[in-house]
Amino acid sequence: MSDGVIAIAITLLVLEIHVPEERGNEALARALVDQWPSYFGFALSFLTIGVVWANHHDMFRDIARVDHVLVVLNLLLMMGISFIPFSTAVLAGHLEAEDGRFVATILYGASFLFTAVLLNVIWHYASWRRRLIAPDVSGRHIHGRSVRYVVGPLFYGLTLPLAMISPLISLTVYAIVAAIYLIPVGD
Amino acid sequence: MSDGVIAIAITLLVLEIHVPEERGNEALARALVDQWPSYFGFALSFLTIGVVWANHHDMFRDIARVDHVLVVLNLLLMMGISFIPFSTAVLAGHLEAEDGRFVATILYGASFLFTAVLLNVIWHYASWRRRLIAPDVSGRHIHGRSVRYVVGPLFYGLTLPLAMISPLISLTVYAIVAAIYLIPVGD
Amino acid sequence: MSDGVIAIAITLLVLEIHVPEERGNEALARALVDQWPSYFGFALSFLTIGVVWANHHDMFRDIARVDHVLVVLNLLLMMGISFIPFSTAVLAGHLEAEDGRFVATILYGASFLFTAVLLNVIWHYASWRRRLIAPDVSGRHIHGRSVRYVVGPLFYGLTLPLAMISPLISLTVYAIVAAIYLIPVGD
Amino acid sequence: MSDGVIAIAITLLVLEIHVPEERGNEALARALVDQWPSYFGFALSFLTIGVVWANHHDMFRDIARVDHVLVVLNLLLMMGISFIPFSTAVLAGHLEAEDGRFVATILYGASFLFTAVLLNVIWHYASWRRRLIAPDVSGRHIHGRSVRYVVGPLFYGLTLPLAMISPLISLTVYAIVAAIYLIPVGD
Repeated sequence: MSDGVIAIAITLLVLEIHVPEERGNEALARALVDQWPSYFGFALSFLTIGVVWANHHDMFRDIARVDHVLVVLNLLLMMGISFIPFSTAVLAGHLEAEDGRFVATILYGASFLFTAVLLNVIWHYASWRRRLIAPDVSGRHIHGRSVRYVVGPLFYGLTLPLAMISPLISLTVYAIVAAIYLIPVGD
Repeated sequence: MSDGVIAIAITLLVLEIHVPEERGNEALARALVDQWPSYFGFALSFLTIGVVWANHHDMFRDIARVDHVLVVLNLLLMMGISFIPFSTAVLAGHLEAEDGRFVATILYGASFLFTAVLLNVIWHYASWRRRLIAPDVSGRHIHGRSVRYVVGPLFYGLTLPLAMISPLISLTVYAIVAAIYLIPVGD
Repeated sequence: MSDGVIAIAITLLVLEIHVPEERGNEALARALVDQWPSYFGFALSFLTIGVVWANHHDMFRDIARVDHVLVVLNLLLMMGISFIPFSTAVLAGHLEAEDGRFVATILYGASFLFTAVLLNVIWHYASWRRRLIAPDVSGRHIHGRSVRYVVGPLFYGLTLPLAMISPLISLTVYAIVAAIYLIPVGD
Repeated sequence: MSDGVIAIAITLLVLEIHVPEERGNEALARALVDQWPSYFGFALSFLTIGVVWANHHDMFRDIARVDHVLVVLNLLLMMGISFIPFSTAVLAGHLEAEDGRFVATILYGASFLFTAVLLNVIWHYASWRRRLIAPDVSGRHIHGRSVRYVVGPLFYGLTLPLAMISPLISLTVYAIVAAIYLIPVGD
């Protein structure tokens, strides 16, 4: 189920990019350049969902059994991910105007925070007293994942109030969170 | 087939949420808050389809063989689920206006009723004289599922006329039906 | 690949149904009823694609090997199926007006004819001298499928000129073609 | 993951074809014919993504292991493919007007170039010193794939400046690149 929903949500992002109808090479080029926030939102959301996807996939390799609560928690995570094309479109539509940017960034950050928190909730629910964890997974491995996963909610949570000072700082942090995961460090 | 269609239908729900174009932080915030029926419809439909999905998945674990009739019944169920993004959009667009709410709720409830009835039809077709049931499934298990599945059509059927008195009561019932399944009770 | 594309095309059909914005219970109800061609198109295309899907799935159980030509032919079939949400939307938008109905029906029928022809081409390419057929498939079984598959292009081909006399007759034939497959006869 | 994203991107192409609302058989027929660039873009992008898909699928049969860098590169390739429905819509909307065609073709070609380059980057990353290649894949086979894959970026790269002279020549080249792969030569 999860793979299908994430694949669709990530691909629907493109539908939120407006197709400019300006005529003439110059006008079209300007219209395409002017909507850079749409490309920025598309790329940032695509990569962020991609990171959630990889982590989700990874996490479920440690989980041996699935119970009813886990299914429900996972459904909520999928609901959060499905919502991101909307919050991305709102961000893209208001990023350029100085007035409006703040609210759009809050919504955008909140949708990221929601998925990051749920990823943690799922992991802690599954790993609590090794409830649903495969027997061959070491305690150290579990602990390592718990520590790494806390980065997301922490960063996203801190940047929500930060958006009051400057939405652009928040968005930079989101890009950094995605980059931290995407750039291979040593391993 | 079913998994793909349900995953797509559940993810398409987000496309029905209108992206507000109001400029300015205050206006945008108000516009976002004002369209709460869209979020309500999104969440309720997402969770309800999620419940149908889990039940569908569960049910097919008891079913060992598939015949032509079952394929056709399943195709009709998928058609019903595919229709829900539309009935959700109609509900979201008319929930706030006191006049219009009734018709939108009837359409919404009818689309839920349709899927719930079909889920029952499929189960009874398959389990009738254990026609398509795996040999290791106990009679008691079959009976238990039959009893549980009847809850959906019953609740959805009863709330359709109820919408004449108050659409909000109907919608509360839909939320309760989803919650009954989602909240783990004991097991 | 095929399963994914067909699942998406069949589910995208719902996006072509217009969400009425009429206010008030009566106006909304009338608007919903007035767009019956959209529901008709949705259901007819959904069931027809469903039938193609089942046949496609069925056919590939007889096919043991896949070569380059088959991949390309299959890609063309997927292109045809992907196009149907568009031809359905055109039909739904022009079915009610007496003037316009003819052209929309031709486009709609042509998109069905295209998929039916390609299904036949794929089958004949694969079964020609048993080129790609599994060894345990009997010659009689191959012949039976060849005969059954010809029904689609034949009916769709004949109804294209028929649309000149009456588009409604053509559409009735399309519904009958789908029904012939969907209604179980004996087996 | 990849299969899901590509299947969705390829099927979303149809949503970019505008449904004409002209009334009357003649006006509708003319409107349908007039938007031939939409069908052209739909078909060309569908076949090109289809070719990328087949190559991607093929390539991963030679790749035995997946590491973090490969996952990230693949995510970027998926992002490029997801973007094509947008660049196709821009092309379709500006192909007919002589002024505007140039910019739209550049964007379109650039989105193709991006995916072709990434396919090469992935292959070279995986095959460099046989890093992630299955042991039974011969050096000659690896070399053959490297040579064949270079065709895409080469052709797409050369046609980008060519679009300055004539966008139609560029588009013809794109069609030829797709055809080269699609038409079976000997094997």
